[in-house]
Amino acid sequence: MAGYHFGWWDRDGFEIDADPGKSLRAALVIASAAACSGGPVDAASAGAAVELVHNFTLVHDDIMDRDLTRRGRPTVWSVWGITDAMLLGDALQALAVRTAVEGCAKHIAAEVVSRLAATMVELCRGQQEDCAFETREGITVNDYLQMVAGKTGALMGCSCALGACCAGADAETVSAMDAFGRRLGLAFQFTDDLLGIWGQPRLSGKPVGNDVKRRKRSLPVVAAIESGTSAGLELAWMFDAEHPLDAEDADRAVELIERAGGRAYTERQAEQQVRRALAELPDRLVTEDLMILAQGVWGREK
Amino acid sequence: MAGYHFGWWDRDGFEIDADPGKSLRAALVIASAAACSGGPVDAASAGAAVELVHNFTLVHDDIMDRDLTRRGRPTVWSVWGITDAMLLGDALQALAVRTAVEGCAKHIAAEVVSRLAATMVELCRGQQEDCAFETREGITVNDYLQMVAGKTGALMGCSCALGACCAGADAETVSAMDAFGRRLGLAFQFTDDLLGIWGQPRLSGKPVGNDVKRRKRSLPVVAAIESGTSAGLELAWMFDAEHPLDAEDADRAVELIERAGGRAYTERQAEQQVRRALAELPDRLVTEDLMILAQGVWGREK
Repeated sequence: MAGYHFGWWDRDGFEIDADPGKSLRAALVIASAAACSGGPVDAASAGAAVELVHNFTLVHDDIMDRDLTRRGRPTVWSVWGITDAMLLGDALQALAVRTAVEGCAKHIAAEVVSRLAATMVELCRGQQEDCAFETREGITVNDYLQMVAGKTGALMGCSCALGACCAGADAETVSAMDAFGRRLGLAFQFTDDLLGIWGQPRLSGKPVGNDVKRRKRSLPVVAAIESGTSAGLELAWMFDAEHPLDAEDADRAVELIERAGGRAYTERQAEQQVRRALAELPDRLVTEDLMILAQGVWGREK
Repeated sequence: MAGYHFGWWDRDGFEIDADPGKSLRAALVIASAAACSGGPVDAASAGAAVELVHNFTLVHDDIMDRDLTRRGRPTVWSVWGITDAMLLGDALQALAVRTAVEGCAKHIAAEVVSRLAATMVELCRGQQEDCAFETREGITVNDYLQMVAGKTGALMGCSCALGACCAGADAETVSAMDAFGRRLGLAFQFTDDLLGIWGQPRLSGKPVGNDVKRRKRSLPVVAAIESGTSAGLELAWMFDAEHPLDAEDADRAVELIERAGGRAYTERQAEQQVRRALAELPDRLVTEDLMILAQGVWGREK
């Protein structure tokens, strides 16, 4: 099931060449290590560990969200059922810890595992809030930002911090890399939210209009509702109704989000977070690789 | 949710005094440490960590098995839903690792975490097999034993091994304690299987006849079917049928298991595993506390 999820195998275990995902978090670990003069080999286990954590959450999130496709293929739970998919996620979480503790240099293994475990608790908190938002009214932009800090910011902060750790950086540098990664994480989620509404299903591998139909309170929606415009008010009314949104409702909702300024606001916020992430990082750490990754977080189409 | 699950709070967060579970695994950690001349304080974090692992699996297993009660109270998923219960389990797994890595002495933290993570992977494998057995025909006693080694043996072995680790024992002693705990784990599961059919719901906190109604292939059942007796054949036929068992079927099945010798076989196996566990442990490690715990695994009523 893990090999299937990572795009290496089909459901019968035969090798295929499907989309394995971006491995952005592993790339951040390696690039952050390099920014602190560390080699890729020393950071490889930490990179694998954060990818295992990320994929454990994807497998479980797909169950919670009842998502049928991921990277253009049926999700693990939709092929093998909820029980097996839960257990795969549990095992991937355990394997992340095992990879970190057994693969990292002895003198940093405990710190790497400690950061990883604290991050996983934050991830659970963020995902819990995200799911709770679907049935809660009156979500503000601030509520949303706190949720995203856990759901997406924590692991990208952890990725950059672990890269620095593996390179033997001092505590101050590790903290700076953590803050950098957390900002990138926000920009990443804002972009994800945009793609969830205006993305190309062909590129994202996710069905179109999904987020709106299930009335997901992503940043464009929350910002539109808080805008105080008439479009925002109509949108708030649609999102607070009991019945699910059909395709026609969803089209109308997308139009309202755009008219209320939710799209432009989110695009601006994504760009700003990337700019601030880079601006706040000590100059000596701003490498070309980190800049390319940071720009990619914001400008991506999938 | 965690406080509720551990019996500390009611669902609204008010303190109550409900059954917190046996904490057998934590007791094994402490008693194993003591057998290796280690104090309880040095082993406390490892004890807490194995309890967190155990409870993470309980919270997730209850979802997979659709169990409505645990320790005489509604299960977490039946109160808060599947999503929140999944996330609680995920967070408890992460907290187990965090407790181990941050609470154990620096020079053993990596080994403790490494054993814990490897054990969690074994647990997932065992639980996966257990669930798969419900829809698979022709399960043999050997299939069953392999499943139980992962599902129950691994964590009890890990508990005893971690106690030894925390006491600074040598690798050979740690291995001996691991083997001891694994045997106890088998006896524990055999006894659990007996209680799942003949236990007092008042004591066990689980509904009567549950295991039989859902055609769970526990040791008494598998042994009865393998017995070659006419009762075993009739039982095999009942368990292979498509329709679920009603109360009358279940009563008949229980009678058949007993007549085919499944109950007596399982009782004998549980006793034997405990006896062998103690017999194979080096004499210097067989303390009174470990003997009491070992006897309790086998003779318990809940």
